[in-house]
Amino acid sequence: MSNRDILIVGSVAFDSLETPHGHRDTCLGGSATYSSVSASFFADVSIVAVVGDDFPENHTTTLRNRGINLEGLERVEGGRTFRWRGRYGENLNEAHTLETQLNVFEHFDPRIPEAHRKAPLLFLGNIDPELQVKVLDQMDHPHLVAMDTMNFWITGKRPELLEVLSRIDLLIINDGEARQLSGESNIMRAADRIRAMGPTILIIKRGEYGAMLFHPEGMFCAPAVPLRDVLDPTGAGDTFAGGLMGSLARAESLDFNALKRAVLTGTVMASFTCEGFSLERLLSLQESELEQRLSDLGGMMKFD
Amino acid sequence: MSNRDILIVGSVAFDSLETPHGHRDTCLGGSATYSSVSASFFADVSIVAVVGDDFPENHTTTLRNRGINLEGLERVEGGRTFRWRGRYGENLNEAHTLETQLNVFEHFDPRIPEAHRKAPLLFLGNIDPELQVKVLDQMDHPHLVAMDTMNFWITGKRPELLEVLSRIDLLIINDGEARQLSGESNIMRAADRIRAMGPTILIIKRGEYGAMLFHPEGMFCAPAVPLRDVLDPTGAGDTFAGGLMGSLARAESLDFNALKRAVLTGTVMASFTCEGFSLERLLSLQESELEQRLSDLGGMMKFD
Repeated sequence: MSNRDILIVGSVAFDSLETPHGHRDTCLGGSATYSSVSASFFADVSIVAVVGDDFPENHTTTLRNRGINLEGLERVEGGRTFRWRGRYGENLNEAHTLETQLNVFEHFDPRIPEAHRKAPLLFLGNIDPELQVKVLDQMDHPHLVAMDTMNFWITGKRPELLEVLSRIDLLIINDGEARQLSGESNIMRAADRIRAMGPTILIIKRGEYGAMLFHPEGMFCAPAVPLRDVLDPTGAGDTFAGGLMGSLARAESLDFNALKRAVLTGTVMASFTCEGFSLERLLSLQESELEQRLSDLGGMMKFD
Repeated sequence: MSNRDILIVGSVAFDSLETPHGHRDTCLGGSATYSSVSASFFADVSIVAVVGDDFPENHTTTLRNRGINLEGLERVEGGRTFRWRGRYGENLNEAHTLETQLNVFEHFDPRIPEAHRKAPLLFLGNIDPELQVKVLDQMDHPHLVAMDTMNFWITGKRPELLEVLSRIDLLIINDGEARQLSGESNIMRAADRIRAMGPTILIIKRGEYGAMLFHPEGMFCAPAVPLRDVLDPTGAGDTFAGGLMGSLARAESLDFNALKRAVLTGTVMASFTCEGFSLERLLSLQESELEQRLSDLGGMMKFD
């Protein structure tokens, strides 16, 4: 176990998507999928997740080809993989969920393989906070625990969510969720309240408007990569988180500047995800393209 | 006439405002008012505008005390000053107009005093594009012409607006208006189309999300100043434009970096306007507060 290892717990799913630019049926998706593929550009990544026996070999091969360790990917015989069906309107900012089938996720009891319990960096993808607690209970002093969540858990499992929040270092959340979680419409006040719940570091994602990083040493604001063609934003948030964790792992640092760079890296990775359906663009991504876009993004923020 | 002079043409008005934080009746407002006061922190400013004989001496004194040249402020005997009444909802992002009385503005025929026709920097505030054309016709080769407009003119006087656009250098507009003007929902494509209409430089304001600068040499993205208390956003856009023009005047440069700094200055000035009703906060603003906030904003964008 090196200082650069990342463990990701989340969903592996089949997504069916409709956007103004087309549709895809039963394509690879899920929070653990997007975040692990994104992180795999920068670090060694392992996932803990569950699929059914309908999950095809070519998808596991895809993940394995990215160097992702799948020892913790449980396969339930006779079970069906988690499925999500969603539709985006013209502005592509918000997904309308048409159908969610929990399937094997309904009874998922995450077990962290012995080899992964000492992972220095842990990302808890957007899953039931009760499961997030179970994961934390099995870990052996990670250096940094980051997590994502969503409105469904904020309203439906608030006590459990508050317990997880009290035990993590970094929360990654969008602005609507930040307002909902804190009960504050002003984003600065919302950030204060959320950080008082536990996470000393907070990242508020604002979609096409970028992201804000709140850190004990100060604030950092990053714009999003301005895109001419957004095909499918599904997984952009998970891709952001994966790129962020990957960047931190590669930097082998958790200081303010490393977090700033991690936010920029997450931003760039998310932008690629938006440019294709499912993981199509992310899987064709070259290191040089990533570096170029990171440099362009930095250029848009620079002044003398 | 120095290289640092700014001429501003726009409205001087009485505003009546309701926000979740309070209300004000018949207070000083108008695009020329906010933008000239804002610019006056950095440069010599003259305005061309019209008021009625109900416009009290203490308001002209307020403007004169900021060093603003009022030779071009026409006073119509027996006329009433332009009035606007608006209300803001909880999120303070959008004003709902309750009443507009054009009054003396209805027959306004802007005449630029001889001494101001050679002003190097001209800002055309948000007024009827027919009036903006009349102003341009009287000017003697300004170095830079910037303008603002709004949805009302985009839909109601499109041919006249397109004529003005073909004759200016810099358009300052918000994102909704940019989409409306261009017919493009994607902001990058909208920017392309608008710049093809004339202005080589385009600034798209995105409220609490900051501003984007499109320049022949590249793009620049600036976050807004994150505020804990927004009392009244009226005039924020005009204040932005005034600070921007003032910063360009002080820099005595129109290059890309000068424009970046001007965007940051406009952003900071606008943030102060939001912190008070009418011009209350702007008029109490100290140079040191302005410098501090500018430095804080730059700090939020910096990384190594």
